[in-house]
Amino acid sequence: MEIIDKRLIFEGGSLEGKEIVSSHRVLKDLKGIFADEEAREAMDAEQLAYEVECHFPVEEGTLGGLFFGLTKLYPGKVGNEYFMTKGHFHAESERAEYYWGIKGEGVLILMDREGKTWGEKMYPGSLHYIPSHVAHRVANTGEELLSFGACWPSDAGHDYETIATEGFSARLLDVDGKPQLKSSNQ
Amino acid sequence: MEIIDKRLIFEGGSLEGKEIVSSHRVLKDLKGIFADEEAREAMDAEQLAYEVECHFPVEEGTLGGLFFGLTKLYPGKVGNEYFMTKGHFHAESERAEYYWGIKGEGVLILMDREGKTWGEKMYPGSLHYIPSHVAHRVANTGEELLSFGACWPSDAGHDYETIATEGFSARLLDVDGKPQLKSSNQ
Repeated sequence: MEIIDKRLIFEGGSLEGKEIVSSHRVLKDLKGIFADEEAREAMDAEQLAYEVECHFPVEEGTLGGLFFGLTKLYPGKVGNEYFMTKGHFHAESERAEYYWGIKGEGVLILMDREGKTWGEKMYPGSLHYIPSHVAHRVANTGEELLSFGACWPSDAGHDYETIATEGFSARLLDVDGKPQLKSSNQ
Repeated sequence: MEIIDKRLIFEGGSLEGKEIVSSHRVLKDLKGIFADEEAREAMDAEQLAYEVECHFPVEEGTLGGLFFGLTKLYPGKVGNEYFMTKGHFHAESERAEYYWGIKGEGVLILMDREGKTWGEKMYPGSLHYIPSHVAHRVANTGEELLSFGACWPSDAGHDYETIATEGFSARLLDVDGKPQLKSSNQ
């Protein structure tokens, strides 16, 4: 009987192998995400903000299946706001997700359906449960690459639209060299 | 707005923090699991075989939630069979799971409902998708501790009984110093 080596490596590197789909976002893909749109426009539109490598072993929408992802978020700021992922709710909202820190430093920004926003520090070995009905995005607050793992149900889907339209109720800003969550209405 | 540190650390260590449940298995808990029961009985009944630390942020049975685990499996053999976990199907069989290697070397042993058994090499950074309806157990084939992460749906449950009664159709044995999967009927 066979012992196989699937070679899906993620630790300290990239997720490579069969069934892996890679994507990336440059600054022009993040139009309207940051508070200071003028600052974003003044930057290189092709500057890489983050890369995502995902393992999709079953079809999107499959009940009871799981997906796995590795995100690499580069350090940087748009104005005084840290580079961050777009953020999303799950389309099938009754679906949780785990994130865990692998390299670098950051903050997982979470918002419930009532608009309450909070943050959790991310660092190598930190583990984060994202409950159902909670929007999530990650900001890199360090000087180096932030990488983190993710696992979520294959029937969760993504609702990016709500966040693209309404945003989070708070933003993670560099205030005198320290990350602070500040109300988006201030 | 608050940025909190949940301190659920797993990398290179233990999973510690709120909502963590730890358990362990010593050799007397693994009666009937190994082929050579006489060899197991001759060993120290209290010898630690493996420890599991789990994060249960929601109740078992919750639809759309997830659980997270860290398993530490010690090196050793019972006769010529490597130390291994009990192995299980999911009680709600239409539920997948991810395992990924963190430290050490081992083999993930998988068996489908038709009794076909196969193995996947585990090592730091290896990623393993365990499809729905597939039983899974892990054997430590190295000289050191094997640790691996796991993520599974909170409504998957565990069916240990089927494996306890019928076993896997193959066993991972040390054959001239190399791990080989051998039919349980040989």
